[in-house]
Amino acid sequence: VAVAPICVEDFRRLAREKLAPDVWDYIEGGSGGELTVAANRRAFERAELRPRVMVDVSTCPTGTELLGTHLSAPLGVAPTAYHELAHADGEVGTAHGAGTAGVLYVVGMFASRTLEEIAAAATGPLWLQLYWLRRRDVLADLAARAVTAGYRALVLTVDAPRIGRRLRDLRNGFGVDPDVDAANLDADLMATTHRRRTGESAIAVHAAETFDASLTWADLAWLRGLTALPIVLKGILTGEDARRAVDHGVDGLIVSNHGGRQLDPTTPSLHALAEVVAAVDGACPVLVDGGVRGGTDVFTALAVGASTVLIGRPVLWALAHDGGPGVAGLFALLREELEHTMALAGRPRLADIDRAAVRLDRRG
Amino acid sequence: VAVAPICVEDFRRLAREKLAPDVWDYIEGGSGGELTVAANRRAFERAELRPRVMVDVSTCPTGTELLGTHLSAPLGVAPTAYHELAHADGEVGTAHGAGTAGVLYVVGMFASRTLEEIAAAATGPLWLQLYWLRRRDVLADLAARAVTAGYRALVLTVDAPRIGRRLRDLRNGFGVDPDVDAANLDADLMATTHRRRTGESAIAVHAAETFDASLTWADLAWLRGLTALPIVLKGILTGEDARRAVDHGVDGLIVSNHGGRQLDPTTPSLHALAEVVAAVDGACPVLVDGGVRGGTDVFTALAVGASTVLIGRPVLWALAHDGGPGVAGLFALLREELEHTMALAGRPRLADIDRAAVRLDRRG
Amino acid sequence: VAVAPICVEDFRRLAREKLAPDVWDYIEGGSGGELTVAANRRAFERAELRPRVMVDVSTCPTGTELLGTHLSAPLGVAPTAYHELAHADGEVGTAHGAGTAGVLYVVGMFASRTLEEIAAAATGPLWLQLYWLRRRDVLADLAARAVTAGYRALVLTVDAPRIGRRLRDLRNGFGVDPDVDAANLDADLMATTHRRRTGESAIAVHAAETFDASLTWADLAWLRGLTALPIVLKGILTGEDARRAVDHGVDGLIVSNHGGRQLDPTTPSLHALAEVVAAVDGACPVLVDGGVRGGTDVFTALAVGASTVLIGRPVLWALAHDGGPGVAGLFALLREELEHTMALAGRPRLADIDRAAVRLDRRG
Amino acid sequence: VAVAPICVEDFRRLAREKLAPDVWDYIEGGSGGELTVAANRRAFERAELRPRVMVDVSTCPTGTELLGTHLSAPLGVAPTAYHELAHADGEVGTAHGAGTAGVLYVVGMFASRTLEEIAAAATGPLWLQLYWLRRRDVLADLAARAVTAGYRALVLTVDAPRIGRRLRDLRNGFGVDPDVDAANLDADLMATTHRRRTGESAIAVHAAETFDASLTWADLAWLRGLTALPIVLKGILTGEDARRAVDHGVDGLIVSNHGGRQLDPTTPSLHALAEVVAAVDGACPVLVDGGVRGGTDVFTALAVGASTVLIGRPVLWALAHDGGPGVAGLFALLREELEHTMALAGRPRLADIDRAAVRLDRRG
Repeated sequence: VAVAPICVEDFRRLAREKLAPDVWDYIEGGSGGELTVAANRRAFERAELRPRVMVDVSTCPTGTELLGTHLSAPLGVAPTAYHELAHADGEVGTAHGAGTAGVLYVVGMFASRTLEEIAAAATGPLWLQLYWLRRRDVLADLAARAVTAGYRALVLTVDAPRIGRRLRDLRNGFGVDPDVDAANLDADLMATTHRRRTGESAIAVHAAETFDASLTWADLAWLRGLTALPIVLKGILTGEDARRAVDHGVDGLIVSNHGGRQLDPTTPSLHALAEVVAAVDGACPVLVDGGVRGGTDVFTALAVGASTVLIGRPVLWALAHDGGPGVAGLFALLREELEHTMALAGRPRLADIDRAAVRLDRRG
Repeated sequence: VAVAPICVEDFRRLAREKLAPDVWDYIEGGSGGELTVAANRRAFERAELRPRVMVDVSTCPTGTELLGTHLSAPLGVAPTAYHELAHADGEVGTAHGAGTAGVLYVVGMFASRTLEEIAAAATGPLWLQLYWLRRRDVLADLAARAVTAGYRALVLTVDAPRIGRRLRDLRNGFGVDPDVDAANLDADLMATTHRRRTGESAIAVHAAETFDASLTWADLAWLRGLTALPIVLKGILTGEDARRAVDHGVDGLIVSNHGGRQLDPTTPSLHALAEVVAAVDGACPVLVDGGVRGGTDVFTALAVGASTVLIGRPVLWALAHDGGPGVAGLFALLREELEHTMALAGRPRLADIDRAAVRLDRRG
Repeated sequence: VAVAPICVEDFRRLAREKLAPDVWDYIEGGSGGELTVAANRRAFERAELRPRVMVDVSTCPTGTELLGTHLSAPLGVAPTAYHELAHADGEVGTAHGAGTAGVLYVVGMFASRTLEEIAAAATGPLWLQLYWLRRRDVLADLAARAVTAGYRALVLTVDAPRIGRRLRDLRNGFGVDPDVDAANLDADLMATTHRRRTGESAIAVHAAETFDASLTWADLAWLRGLTALPIVLKGILTGEDARRAVDHGVDGLIVSNHGGRQLDPTTPSLHALAEVVAAVDGACPVLVDGGVRGGTDVFTALAVGASTVLIGRPVLWALAHDGGPGVAGLFALLREELEHTMALAGRPRLADIDRAAVRLDRRG
Repeated sequence: VAVAPICVEDFRRLAREKLAPDVWDYIEGGSGGELTVAANRRAFERAELRPRVMVDVSTCPTGTELLGTHLSAPLGVAPTAYHELAHADGEVGTAHGAGTAGVLYVVGMFASRTLEEIAAAATGPLWLQLYWLRRRDVLADLAARAVTAGYRALVLTVDAPRIGRRLRDLRNGFGVDPDVDAANLDADLMATTHRRRTGESAIAVHAAETFDASLTWADLAWLRGLTALPIVLKGILTGEDARRAVDHGVDGLIVSNHGGRQLDPTTPSLHALAEVVAAVDGACPVLVDGGVRGGTDVFTALAVGASTVLIGRPVLWALAHDGGPGVAGLFALLREELEHTMALAGRPRLADIDRAAVRLDRRG
């Protein structure tokens, strides 16, 4: 008889049974030698928690505020593309699941459902992620629709002037299934994303055609001019850039190496988080994604200074496994594991999760 | 023909042949990713002993005193539950074995034999371990019975406001065999421990119902008021908590991560021992358990500052293998290995086992 | 259907299908325990790139100057012997490929085609590599021919007073195929290179007979007196020797451990590069070879201070796979990967690739 | 067809085919978890040589003096017992081989041939190794015979007040073959060495009966009083004991952990060598054994400060493979590899092998 998933890794195994090999590779793979994918995990596995005892942990509430929004836990969905590749409900399922769990959902620009459909399904907070397109009119249109649909922040991905060399996709000649579209963008603009050619990634070809690699800090002012929504930068990995972002008045940062799918090898997200948190010094919230596979990882990231932790691949695993309820179950599990870790670590409130609660580099 | 065990690992192999898979998993498993289980061993395996030569090692006596009690060696049985799961003689067998070997036996609160039966069988010193139950009357009753039965100290486990996520037990739907009871507690109080439900650990369910997660340092006074017995805290992993315990006048500490069965990942016991010993600075005896699998490990822990070293899983292996004589044999082996290590390390007396006798972090 | 190579490792697999086992071993093998071969790779795999974001990377030109010569990228062919062992076109194929790609080609003294044939086929810059022979007249003749044929520098290999103990060659009784000759040297001088004897390497026997192991710094003056060509030393691994070379007025250095084929174990090339760059302090260009297997490795070496990066075994893999076009394809891939890495690392110009762009020793 | 051994490891494979499994285990095994056996090798494998170039290495003589005796290379046979277990020629074969190679031979107290037979066969220098027996008359007799037979030093093993727990021997119930005797000792004294009992090592039983574990520094005077031969202590692993030995006027030290056969885990021999060399500061020669498996290892040990390097197990492998010629071949190979390493490292004389020639702890 089937046992419900009892750890995040269970969702991975369950998803693999559901997904076509090339879609699995698209989700699972990283760029280059996939060294960063491995390093993201290794960084968490090298952390040791330092528990305090005889603290009243009869309740360990996980609720938090992020940019003025309440979350049931410092957790959210990292932006990823084309959820219909994982499940027919696509982003509507994800929105149901995230809403049920009370966590943040950062909707990807290449969502396979419209912003409006997703917003209609959502019962929790939504942010919208954007790549910097050459077609600024398209960005302006998306930002306007996001405001109308009730999205609460814009996330600008800054680590992707082009798509990383994802060898699995190149070998598979990966293209997006013709039945799955980037529902928020013109079919014309997206045509190449469906192309299947040996040795080529349709995703990468499309980005080369449409992304604007000339983005600089000076361009932020234009984005800021579009809406009053908070602007969050995703893909910061150094203290230097974190300080620069703060100087430019961004409302938040997401430390990310794009799940090891862009530059490879690069700094694992947990180590970059420590560097960025030190540089930001409280000036704005710092979120993180990459390699989080359980509540102890969430706890670790919080101890290092993250405000909220975003989950990427596991959301797609959970969606593939069981649609919206799968996503809700994933976040329920992560929240439960976080609460459990808080209890065993003697940190009953999020504010108790201090830097002394974790040692990042175990001995040996 | 059968060869008697010549190293602790031999007991493991012998036990595995005797135990049902779910009981084996219950004993062997850790929580989470079992990273702490592995780290406990790795810490000992990364130690190097620094021998002195041309020291008279014709005799290497291992006898010691602990809280006023003589032990044949600085060794003891760490508290574990339900010894009848391992062998029909249960804790009576363990008491026989520990007594024969002349080592300390810390009886678990969830012993499958009564404190009085165990005391009747014992020829060596006994301590009683307690979890902090909501039912303080039950604790008071156990403490009173312990005094009457001649137990010499109370050990309060402080790392278990709830049970760790032991995935093996969750997958097995582990519940305690109906024929095995926590003999010192009301059947009513223990009913859920026998429940077998897929995806659930009966042990964890029971603890959630009955353990009091609100325990704080202020509560120690109540326990102290029950008896004049020494009070020892088990489950301290940080220097901060060790100092706090000393400030609260505890009589001893047991450095432990519960054999990797509670918070995971956390500090390996050997490294935590070094931190705690430094913090305690001689104010009270410091014991340790977790990952000790031979006499050189015992020697290493003593060099780092342990007063006595407790043995967990190997006692259950020995008990499963051959009952009380198995336990006696295990401790005879450990004592012999310790004495052997003292001779080869040029430390003929326990007092000679100084910090310079071990290097904790080998190169490479 | 065949997929074109999408990473350097693909060329390796393709080459293995083409080459006889003893030739494969000759190319692939290192000396001793092949610890240096492994260390060369490990050093690159332990590097982490530190990307900057929101930099205009719409173009990332890779063109550079090296000793007055333009290169399409800071890349070149490391000197290796007997390219006809890999492909019938031999060095003529390599010259075609390197020329097509616009990279440097350091022709090996033991080329299987004449310097003049190679020069005739080349459309890019050529350097000539020399071992220090007892027959100085032969060296003088080669230097004179190199000048006439338009070679632009002499590279003196200084790490080979004798040939390393390459156990694969000894086991194979390796000798050069009788159909393949060192086309620039007298057949008499090379006779032993074709000898096949169990337990013996013909290459090593020949070197023992003909190389002059008495070479010292004082001998450089003689070489300098032969031509006005720049002189570059190959095989420097320490800061001490790098400073000494600068004091002797050399025009360039190639940090190299001969691809792990000479002394074993020794410093991996990337770590030696850092030491040499610091010692040279800008006095002359520093090149490097050894373990470079992709554009991120090239980027890493540039960040550490290399002027140009030479490629050894992969050129032979590419040549074996597809002759000159294979070599051109290899360098096109490396250049593309370098340009890609520059874009994702936010360093659009070679001059932007600073030391802060890489962390050499990852944590864990 | 058979290929002659081209590296030390080849001798291992060849020997294994010749030896009975229990004899193989006796030779190959270490004590405890065999962690020290592994650590001895790992220490050498983590060293990196730092070569200098453009040094005249046309000749690299390896001849040296040790305590007034000329050796063809700084190499020797470490003392081991019962060479007839490996080959019918026993120590006579070893003496032939060592003599042919011109290296030191430290004859073991438990040689299976008489001191006089061995001396008659030897053409190179001999030392005699002794354990500290309760029967001092036996020691005195052996010392007197050694003087008469022309042995040039006494080596007192100080790391064996008892025999390490060698689990392989215990499992095999190992006893010395009845046809093989300790030829220099009374049969009565050695009777238990032939006993085969499951779970017991005859070697260990015998040592427990006959070795004097009360040896202290004060006892050295008695040994000194027996002869005018130099006295060398074998089994020193710490700077503390090295200084103490120097204070007691010993003529030499052998850094050794008994090939990982006594205390386990302990400091690998190479790391202990560095510590001892620093402590001795030139006051007497320091030799080393343990984990040396090639000429680069010998070079490394010399760079760290060893005067001469002793070889244990490989001598028995070579003897098992081919008797005296095997031993001669082993040392010829090691000498050739050392000379080769000197050439490639740019250290043509032993005196050039300075501490800067090696980095002990590679990065990563």
